[in-house]
Amino acid sequence: MDPLRDRPPRGGRRAKLHAIIFGVRSPAAKGFDVGLLVVIVLSVLTVLLESVPAINATYGTPLRVAEWFFTVVFTVEYALRLWTVAHPRSYALSFFGIVDLLAIVPTYLSALVSGTQSLAAVRGIRLLRVFRVLKLVRHMTEAKVLTAAIVASRPKIVVFLTGVLSVAVIFGTVMYLIEGDEAGFTSIPTSIYWAVVTMTTVGYGDIAPRTPLGQFLALALMILGYAIIAVPTGIVSAELSRAQPQARPRARSRRSCDECGRSGLAPDAAYCDACGAEL
Amino acid sequence: MDPLRDRPPRGGRRAKLHAIIFGVRSPAAKGFDVGLLVVIVLSVLTVLLESVPAINATYGTPLRVAEWFFTVVFTVEYALRLWTVAHPRSYALSFFGIVDLLAIVPTYLSALVSGTQSLAAVRGIRLLRVFRVLKLVRHMTEAKVLTAAIVASRPKIVVFLTGVLSVAVIFGTVMYLIEGDEAGFTSIPTSIYWAVVTMTTVGYGDIAPRTPLGQFLALALMILGYAIIAVPTGIVSAELSRAQPQARPRARSRRSCDECGRSGLAPDAAYCDACGAEL
Amino acid sequence: MDPLRDRPPRGGRRAKLHAIIFGVRSPAAKGFDVGLLVVIVLSVLTVLLESVPAINATYGTPLRVAEWFFTVVFTVEYALRLWTVAHPRSYALSFFGIVDLLAIVPTYLSALVSGTQSLAAVRGIRLLRVFRVLKLVRHMTEAKVLTAAIVASRPKIVVFLTGVLSVAVIFGTVMYLIEGDEAGFTSIPTSIYWAVVTMTTVGYGDIAPRTPLGQFLALALMILGYAIIAVPTGIVSAELSRAQPQARPRARSRRSCDECGRSGLAPDAAYCDACGAEL
Amino acid sequence: MDPLRDRPPRGGRRAKLHAIIFGVRSPAAKGFDVGLLVVIVLSVLTVLLESVPAINATYGTPLRVAEWFFTVVFTVEYALRLWTVAHPRSYALSFFGIVDLLAIVPTYLSALVSGTQSLAAVRGIRLLRVFRVLKLVRHMTEAKVLTAAIVASRPKIVVFLTGVLSVAVIFGTVMYLIEGDEAGFTSIPTSIYWAVVTMTTVGYGDIAPRTPLGQFLALALMILGYAIIAVPTGIVSAELSRAQPQARPRARSRRSCDECGRSGLAPDAAYCDACGAEL
Repeated sequence: MDPLRDRPPRGGRRAKLHAIIFGVRSPAAKGFDVGLLVVIVLSVLTVLLESVPAINATYGTPLRVAEWFFTVVFTVEYALRLWTVAHPRSYALSFFGIVDLLAIVPTYLSALVSGTQSLAAVRGIRLLRVFRVLKLVRHMTEAKVLTAAIVASRPKIVVFLTGVLSVAVIFGTVMYLIEGDEAGFTSIPTSIYWAVVTMTTVGYGDIAPRTPLGQFLALALMILGYAIIAVPTGIVSAELSRAQPQARPRARSRRSCDECGRSGLAPDAAYCDACGAEL
Repeated sequence: MDPLRDRPPRGGRRAKLHAIIFGVRSPAAKGFDVGLLVVIVLSVLTVLLESVPAINATYGTPLRVAEWFFTVVFTVEYALRLWTVAHPRSYALSFFGIVDLLAIVPTYLSALVSGTQSLAAVRGIRLLRVFRVLKLVRHMTEAKVLTAAIVASRPKIVVFLTGVLSVAVIFGTVMYLIEGDEAGFTSIPTSIYWAVVTMTTVGYGDIAPRTPLGQFLALALMILGYAIIAVPTGIVSAELSRAQPQARPRARSRRSCDECGRSGLAPDAAYCDACGAEL
Repeated sequence: MDPLRDRPPRGGRRAKLHAIIFGVRSPAAKGFDVGLLVVIVLSVLTVLLESVPAINATYGTPLRVAEWFFTVVFTVEYALRLWTVAHPRSYALSFFGIVDLLAIVPTYLSALVSGTQSLAAVRGIRLLRVFRVLKLVRHMTEAKVLTAAIVASRPKIVVFLTGVLSVAVIFGTVMYLIEGDEAGFTSIPTSIYWAVVTMTTVGYGDIAPRTPLGQFLALALMILGYAIIAVPTGIVSAELSRAQPQARPRARSRRSCDECGRSGLAPDAAYCDACGAEL
Repeated sequence: MDPLRDRPPRGGRRAKLHAIIFGVRSPAAKGFDVGLLVVIVLSVLTVLLESVPAINATYGTPLRVAEWFFTVVFTVEYALRLWTVAHPRSYALSFFGIVDLLAIVPTYLSALVSGTQSLAAVRGIRLLRVFRVLKLVRHMTEAKVLTAAIVASRPKIVVFLTGVLSVAVIFGTVMYLIEGDEAGFTSIPTSIYWAVVTMTTVGYGDIAPRTPLGQFLALALMILGYAIIAVPTGIVSAELSRAQPQARPRARSRRSCDECGRSGLAPDAAYCDACGAEL
């Protein structure tokens, strides 16, 4: 169920809060949105900065304080959302309901666990907070057109990816036979990794062919990748071109006047616009 | 001859099996397709995993068992296909006939050869099994539109590739003169390899110019490549845009004649244009 | 205010100079433009060459002389522009006014400061001169179409970039957990840097995954990036296709009937096609 | 003057040879073209292989023999072209005349010079032979459409490249200030080289930022480059889409009714759909 329409009975405080939290037009709703946006970005930045050893050593305490502040804000937000929708359960199980819960649970969990469990587990749990970035999706209204264009091209994209992976499997296997261990092609999966790195033109250079035959095959793969990259681009371009309402040419009808023979009269014309005869 | 239409005489068990194996609509045919798809993917995964030294050392035996299982499945599949088509020979010589054969031969060959021949040859033969991935092509029905768009752009792509290779040959030769051995430009073919790596924006970095003049030429080549990549993309985009049935302009109306049943009459027609009846 | 239209009173020497400096059509104005273009390019080249230690050691004095020559030229240009426009203040505060000032101030500043301040500050100030390259923008008349296409696609581009960054944050965090320090993933910001380097297919290779799981995720990210690059290309393609005047479909005139108010009458209509009144 | 039309007087042996050498339709002309194509590709391969030390040491003599053979063939071709055109001088000064001369001069020159001059000069001259690859251009008839599309987009491409270079100059200078020598940013030109390597997504990795601020700026540059690559692609796509005659939308027939003058009747109509008259 769409939480935007999952309104509580009109008139009460819950309805007003619902309009502020889930609405997008009123000044209060806009203010709430912008405030939340800022808090989301800041809270993700906190997670990122905490992972930098130098910063964590110096600013560890303020970062942890900020962290708890954001967690409280998101907890209040989550509670209000649960309280204001008419069907809390369907909200809680929706995509955004889960994202909103995921934004607060890790901090509480890490507080509970920190004493008893290993450091790695705590670290992993704390980092889950970075999924708060998904809360941003709620604010991307423009995303729908793009998503629609991608979804419409999905079958072609699946075929395209299967093709790319098949080419990568075959080239990877052949390169594994030709190049061998010393150039970094230590197994077929590693060689496939190299083939995808090459086809997508990423080109790390951690693995690179050394024999002339291997370099020749690599060239073929690069040019193939270069040509293939045109395909998804073409697909999405064509899809987007089609999605856009082209300046429609307002086709004039092919009606013509019996009196004077003038053609191209408007479909709803009652009189000829050249001689004035009734049609 | 298209195996789909290469049906045996109707009515017998062969005809029923043919419908299951080569068909695409009936539940049995769909089940067969999905099952085969799973077996193909698993068998390719087996080949990949076997090549990883650590995995082969631990799970060598189960992988070899799985391998023989897949080979038997593909052998049965191949035999059934041969048996159910009306003209086995034309199937055996078709693209998919050869792919299906290639999927089973390497395992038998490697069993025969292993005692007497060198390890490298056996390894090479066993890896041929990876071409089983080509069996997937049979299941990519969407591929036709893409293939058609690529085939339609083929002459332009040939010209484009000739142009790219000519530029690579000229830049490679000039860089070979400018940079010399210590930067990695040890021969013209190697320099051409570098030129293609650069133009396609792969950029491994195993060979890179060091002199200012060389770096300047590299810049020119990169920007050229950056501009050139637009060409194949543009070609395929334009081709795909054209292939797609554009929101058809001026759909003829859905009016049809009560008299003769002719449909698609003009919206303003007063008489049926097929039988002359008044509408 | 547009300096092109910010003309002084006609007739005097100021008006003539204004026509030469801000105009684009007369031979004198074209000569001024080309001369300025050459001086801008040469002055930027001077800044670049000065930063090369070997060149600065040998040609330091001529470069410094050239530098003062260009500064004087730009100072005269700035003074003339200030003098010839009717409202010097609005010019001085416009984008190009600030760029023109920025082109001369650093040289004077570095002469003043060099005695008393640290070398790093002087170097920083001197390098500000490179922003002279922005003076080129004045000469790019074709840029408007491109800028318009980009501006029109802006909301889509913002959504697209937010999406790219969200993907980078999530993949970066996960890779930080999987790979750890020894592969170069020393903090989440560094891992996000790696994720963007990979998604955009730049692929420096200074940081690269080493564990199989990490390499698998890297593959997913590359192919995602490969598919995603199609999106902005498609957006701009579609926008540019739309911007171009397509074989325009015979726009109906804006004529309307005084009698009945019907609008969109054909440009050559003699009678209203709705009420038959003579136009 | 176009050599294709620069025919000698009809009837003689010269005219026949001219038809074979410059023609494209007759079997003899096609045979000549294909033969020349093969010789061009083989002669370029000879130049490439000669530069590989290992191959040159083993197959030096046969390569030199092949080289003289190709030179003689191209000399005969050049002489015949000169002889058969009506105005040899305008051919000799045309693009292809110069390319044809360039294809033979280096071999003779290197034979003359080898005794008296330094090895490097000889090597340089010999490598000029690689420009024989330009002789291929004569055979690329499809190239015209592509060239036309590129030429039509030229002003936009110039603006685009100026923009790209301006961004590279500014980012290069700022990175030179931030990163300094130890990360490889030894001068502004080197930093600009890095900026272009990054923007074009080549990403060698020989120079890469190390400070957090530098990495942040690099991210901005990459995403900028990622967005910018859409521009030339969009330009060429739009240009090519426009060049192609779009699948015309089922033009209605030009049949019209003799009775009432109604035009645009369906091609298979038996009666006029406006007045019901039999057609």
